[in-house]
Amino acid sequence: MASKIKHPELADRGRLQIEWAEKHMPVVAKFIRERFAAEKPLNGIRVGAVLHVTKETAALVRTLVAGGAVVRLAASNPLSTQDDVAAALASEEGIEVCAWRGMSEDEYFDCIRWIASWEPNIVIDDGGDLHATLHKEYLDIAARVWGGTEETTTGVIRLRAMEREGVLKYPAIAVNDAKTKMMFDNRYGTGQSAIDGILRATNILLAGKRVVVAGYGWVGRGIAIRARGMGARVIVTEVDPIKALEAVMDGFEVMPMKEAAKIGDVFITATGNKKVIRREHFEVMKDGAILANAGHFNVEIWVPDLEELAVSKRQVRPYVTEYTLADGRKIYLLAEGRLVNLVAAEGHPSEVMDMSFANQALSVEYLVKSRGKLEPKVYNVPREIDEEVARLKLKAMGIEIDKLTEEQKQYLESWKL
Amino acid sequence: MASKIKHPELADRGRLQIEWAEKHMPVVAKFIRERFAAEKPLNGIRVGAVLHVTKETAALVRTLVAGGAVVRLAASNPLSTQDDVAAALASEEGIEVCAWRGMSEDEYFDCIRWIASWEPNIVIDDGGDLHATLHKEYLDIAARVWGGTEETTTGVIRLRAMEREGVLKYPAIAVNDAKTKMMFDNRYGTGQSAIDGILRATNILLAGKRVVVAGYGWVGRGIAIRARGMGARVIVTEVDPIKALEAVMDGFEVMPMKEAAKIGDVFITATGNKKVIRREHFEVMKDGAILANAGHFNVEIWVPDLEELAVSKRQVRPYVTEYTLADGRKIYLLAEGRLVNLVAAEGHPSEVMDMSFANQALSVEYLVKSRGKLEPKVYNVPREIDEEVARLKLKAMGIEIDKLTEEQKQYLESWKL
Amino acid sequence: MASKIKHPELADRGRLQIEWAEKHMPVVAKFIRERFAAEKPLNGIRVGAVLHVTKETAALVRTLVAGGAVVRLAASNPLSTQDDVAAALASEEGIEVCAWRGMSEDEYFDCIRWIASWEPNIVIDDGGDLHATLHKEYLDIAARVWGGTEETTTGVIRLRAMEREGVLKYPAIAVNDAKTKMMFDNRYGTGQSAIDGILRATNILLAGKRVVVAGYGWVGRGIAIRARGMGARVIVTEVDPIKALEAVMDGFEVMPMKEAAKIGDVFITATGNKKVIRREHFEVMKDGAILANAGHFNVEIWVPDLEELAVSKRQVRPYVTEYTLADGRKIYLLAEGRLVNLVAAEGHPSEVMDMSFANQALSVEYLVKSRGKLEPKVYNVPREIDEEVARLKLKAMGIEIDKLTEEQKQYLESWKL
Amino acid sequence: MASKIKHPELADRGRLQIEWAEKHMPVVAKFIRERFAAEKPLNGIRVGAVLHVTKETAALVRTLVAGGAVVRLAASNPLSTQDDVAAALASEEGIEVCAWRGMSEDEYFDCIRWIASWEPNIVIDDGGDLHATLHKEYLDIAARVWGGTEETTTGVIRLRAMEREGVLKYPAIAVNDAKTKMMFDNRYGTGQSAIDGILRATNILLAGKRVVVAGYGWVGRGIAIRARGMGARVIVTEVDPIKALEAVMDGFEVMPMKEAAKIGDVFITATGNKKVIRREHFEVMKDGAILANAGHFNVEIWVPDLEELAVSKRQVRPYVTEYTLADGRKIYLLAEGRLVNLVAAEGHPSEVMDMSFANQALSVEYLVKSRGKLEPKVYNVPREIDEEVARLKLKAMGIEIDKLTEEQKQYLESWKL
Repeated sequence: MASKIKHPELADRGRLQIEWAEKHMPVVAKFIRERFAAEKPLNGIRVGAVLHVTKETAALVRTLVAGGAVVRLAASNPLSTQDDVAAALASEEGIEVCAWRGMSEDEYFDCIRWIASWEPNIVIDDGGDLHATLHKEYLDIAARVWGGTEETTTGVIRLRAMEREGVLKYPAIAVNDAKTKMMFDNRYGTGQSAIDGILRATNILLAGKRVVVAGYGWVGRGIAIRARGMGARVIVTEVDPIKALEAVMDGFEVMPMKEAAKIGDVFITATGNKKVIRREHFEVMKDGAILANAGHFNVEIWVPDLEELAVSKRQVRPYVTEYTLADGRKIYLLAEGRLVNLVAAEGHPSEVMDMSFANQALSVEYLVKSRGKLEPKVYNVPREIDEEVARLKLKAMGIEIDKLTEEQKQYLESWKL
Repeated sequence: MASKIKHPELADRGRLQIEWAEKHMPVVAKFIRERFAAEKPLNGIRVGAVLHVTKETAALVRTLVAGGAVVRLAASNPLSTQDDVAAALASEEGIEVCAWRGMSEDEYFDCIRWIASWEPNIVIDDGGDLHATLHKEYLDIAARVWGGTEETTTGVIRLRAMEREGVLKYPAIAVNDAKTKMMFDNRYGTGQSAIDGILRATNILLAGKRVVVAGYGWVGRGIAIRARGMGARVIVTEVDPIKALEAVMDGFEVMPMKEAAKIGDVFITATGNKKVIRREHFEVMKDGAILANAGHFNVEIWVPDLEELAVSKRQVRPYVTEYTLADGRKIYLLAEGRLVNLVAAEGHPSEVMDMSFANQALSVEYLVKSRGKLEPKVYNVPREIDEEVARLKLKAMGIEIDKLTEEQKQYLESWKL
Repeated sequence: MASKIKHPELADRGRLQIEWAEKHMPVVAKFIRERFAAEKPLNGIRVGAVLHVTKETAALVRTLVAGGAVVRLAASNPLSTQDDVAAALASEEGIEVCAWRGMSEDEYFDCIRWIASWEPNIVIDDGGDLHATLHKEYLDIAARVWGGTEETTTGVIRLRAMEREGVLKYPAIAVNDAKTKMMFDNRYGTGQSAIDGILRATNILLAGKRVVVAGYGWVGRGIAIRARGMGARVIVTEVDPIKALEAVMDGFEVMPMKEAAKIGDVFITATGNKKVIRREHFEVMKDGAILANAGHFNVEIWVPDLEELAVSKRQVRPYVTEYTLADGRKIYLLAEGRLVNLVAAEGHPSEVMDMSFANQALSVEYLVKSRGKLEPKVYNVPREIDEEVARLKLKAMGIEIDKLTEEQKQYLESWKL
Repeated sequence: MASKIKHPELADRGRLQIEWAEKHMPVVAKFIRERFAAEKPLNGIRVGAVLHVTKETAALVRTLVAGGAVVRLAASNPLSTQDDVAAALASEEGIEVCAWRGMSEDEYFDCIRWIASWEPNIVIDDGGDLHATLHKEYLDIAARVWGGTEETTTGVIRLRAMEREGVLKYPAIAVNDAKTKMMFDNRYGTGQSAIDGILRATNILLAGKRVVVAGYGWVGRGIAIRARGMGARVIVTEVDPIKALEAVMDGFEVMPMKEAAKIGDVFITATGNKKVIRREHFEVMKDGAILANAGHFNVEIWVPDLEELAVSKRQVRPYVTEYTLADGRKIYLLAEGRLVNLVAAEGHPSEVMDMSFANQALSVEYLVKSRGKLEPKVYNVPREIDEEVARLKLKAMGIEIDKLTEEQKQYLESWKL
């Protein structure tokens, strides 16, 4: 086997993990897999995937293999690999893995090259490094790739830039933008897991606490509603007046961060911007304030300012750093300002990854079926796939919905002219 | 005065009504009006408006006049005119009104022609009859109109059809599609007023009732969340699997209407489609079921089927019709299947009309300022106007929000490339 | 017929009203009535009742008659009689009514004496005036009364005082204190109907408004949760630190009225105390503040202070009085500070009166069955009756619940020793 | 030092833990401690305490010592001791500890005897074993004890039995029954921590899941509202019709467990009874059902039935046991049916223990001050202490509340006669 992994002895434990994930990913691991196994739509297709090597990714990869594909999988982040899952996957037919936790940046890119140079037919990426590497170092190969998909906002932005510059070599599907991905994993996935991460890190009682949520996009409103659901008194901060007004109409207090900073007990950033909480805010916070980031990289809470203001710092619990300021106030930073749901909890629950990865699996199939028919552009996930994912998810939950009658369809048509 | 109204003696009462509305419409009746009064951006402009003649419309008209405009106002519906408001408006300088409750269809169109033939510079419409009349009967005048606005989905659809067919004669702004209109009046306005209408009509206790909401668009989710807020056990029906899945993730029960029909206590339609509740559903409903429509015309609940199934019917309370079926079951239809929030309550609260009409006022100003620069197409409300409306509404509520720093703006720019 | 009513011609309309109420009072008007009709537990019993003469009371009276009783009914408030309902009741066999809207105080007490002097076996009272009259003016008759019930807190307090002083002549059941009465009509009934009354009176949008609820007892928490359910930002004021802390843990803002007065948009009192909102609060309120009382008599909002502060007042909508203060601020008082849910809406929905009056009906039966076995004391509603009411209500809603197994019963017993 | 602990080397880590707890226990660790340190109300008093040796208990013990007491502390459960906390406490002046995780039952009772034989003035107990041991084995000493407190329902039941039998030797305060204990730690503490435990054990997405909560007491309603707050569709089961009806009116689905068993995704028991989920329920559950107990001992979910039905079992994640039934269905039991919030999460957050232990500290002070004035009975926590705890908690949160004016006090008095 060609796999490059660290702990083959953990395969059994990895299998248990994958089994648990697949139990909660019926769309990918049951419905689509069963059809793929019967129809083999990916027969002999080489799929190169750069994804977080987790139990949920394993479910996707195994479904692709069930559809007939041969898969090479590399890590999309040097730190996110679950070594036991990597081991379990590497032990399976048709799957090769290049991933271990704690790989260096060179090793990280070596694994990506190991995929690119393999001449994949279809590529799946999470962040855009595979797409970029293909277009920079393997242009010939890129030109022969049938199509690719992209899981993240960042990656889609990079792909669109390539499209604008006219250098994109193959059609790419922005899985990130699928409704059944974006509206669900951000709102329901991060909404829950951010709360979960904060509880695991701190074990504080949320009831009655003033929780300040910065940003009222999908992530922010997911967190705000969950925090309220735990009994917190929630304050929202925003820069967009329309979103701010929605927050007010949804019953939340809205105010500038400078005011919220004075009264908040817990702060959660979810803006996609940098320096959302910074020196001027740290300076007025209450003793004991807790800070967590659920939005973006570790730039939303501007840690350098906190480091400067602090006279000392120490770790008081796992993932909790206590900063003592000159006047004696203590501020608690969770997960060093990194994504609290990933670091202090387990990231998105399998159920939301089920929807995201169902879009991946069906988009890969679509790219194979559409070979030669698509231009080298960035495409949205076709509406039919988006709806099919929702339909299968509902089916998995045992939920039926209405269907339009012919007469109703005509009526709606007549409306839209 | 040229006004054609029915009850000039009600002007005093009308003034009281307008005052109450304006108290709750600070964006239109205070902020924009004060600026208009100072800047006179509409000086001498003839504005022809076909709108529901209500206290909220009065606030808009008076603000246009404060900006220097001369306004002719006709009713956009033969039944919706508040005669006291019409009288109060007609008594003011710069405003002429052609509207009375219970006008005939001929009279209705006569009023519209009375506006069209006046050669307005700017036209405001609610439903598209003024736009249509101008393009059918007054093509010369239409060609000289500077621009128009449209308040409703129906009207916007008609305008877009005219645009597609290449017959549209002036630029038109789809006020209906403004975020600060669509996302607020449907969700928060109808959400509350539908519940209000049902309570006024029936005085039932909602706590513990099974309330079935058909449709999970803006209106449906507004109603669903308010019904839950009153303690109801809410069931959502949908035809769109993505919306259905959102409803489930928001904690609602989701099932086909055929199932919901068997267990629901109250049914509220909000789909924009016809025959959403029909014979097959009436046949299985519980004795005592209550039906209300909050979505569209009186076609969502298919009353003809109910009429056929019933062995007798009678009115048991204002706006409540009792249908007795052959097996003795009684079904209660509110407001004859018309919009329950308009018929049994007072329609949208002034606060949401404030946002809708702020878009109107600013769009009229925009059309005047952009005279000659726009093509005869359907335009969205400019993002700046949409945000300005939200900003003024927040200001009226005494709410401040954050502003991006220069560094943050650059950071976001760098993201979007 | 001996009835003293005002509008016998309204009997038909009254019957329609009663029918609507009974449709929503299945416990009283179906389950208990059917059993009473079969078993006749009140055969020949004279029941004297002083209650609000409403459609819901009609349902109770008709059930007592179905059980064999002969009933005399008088109004418990000179202003609350629905004349059409009085007429419909007076037209039925076995029922005599002495009640009309707008009776004088003398007439009011004459009707009560008309009942007392009739030598009733069982008395039902709402406020204690019948009990008091019997004990003051008809002591001989009181001594022969088998037992009585009392619907209100006030009445129970008066009865307990009589018990303490040793003057109570018959056993009295504090229906007011039944769990299925007190916990339900206050929380769910007033919770909804207070919101309903405010909407009918003002038609304001609650979403985003700051609603201040004074008092976090059953009524206050019912209102607070419904106001939040309508999208309001809710502030609670309290004098009891334990209740205040519950409010905080339930996610509400809590502050003294003096602070809340400055920022509230709508104020709803539900404390059972006087002068909860007074001069010092009026003085700092925002222009446009709306005041409503849902708790007690018209003493919670101290209107005399408002009258003194105001330079003018006028009615701007039904049930809305505008007070203009010296500095130009306008404050809006609803229903003159009386109970907003009774005055501006229709009071408790029939569904909660169903539970309250089911306790009445079963308590009357219990008093008859227990004749001679009870002492002249104030009794709670027997736990079995309380539970039976809940059980029947659940049955009416089609809801089944679990039953303890024998083993579980023993386990619990062993716990309690 | 006389302490009997296992890991003195962990004292530093324990201190960090205690510090974190005390940061979130301002009532016990700041307000009461500061007063105690100034007033020394427990000067020289020997306090014997049998409590879970956790960081929160440490905060209580240290406050008693600050008040002048000398404390001996033993574990109230052989498995619950945090060895690092025990070490940190044992290193402090005035505190001796007898506790280590994993002690045998003999060792457990030896520690209790080590306290009893020390002739404590005041005893604090959690479960009643110290009270029982004193009354069985050290009757002379018991007779000289000034008074005791009890933290749990179980312990209070045992004390009341002793009182009834006339054998109780000293006054005992039922801290468990304080409002600021019972209404808060059950509802808000267990409500949150049960959800927390389930998330840590399973990482499932709660949004859209059907969560069945057995029991609608304080614990059950706390869990139900938090589960709804996470987006779950919540079903409540009950045996008490009044509580069941409350659940319905609060908007929850209510049905017998036999029906709920067929459709639930997650089951959480909180009844205080045994065999709430048993063979007949396991038999109809869906594949993948997850079971957790948050109520009582490990008897609510009747594991023996599950063991019998299963053809195999294995641990698939920490605290998750998978049972495979004969038909292939898999059922997942969390924490072996023990308290999921204690086993899989960290039990009550410090914030609620703050209130519980504030009652302990003030009750101990009260017992000292009342020496000789109380009878050997079970007393409730005095209302003043209960309110003082709430008042201090509000103060710690920076929340002020209203005070009754003299006039209002008189008004209320006049009401109560």
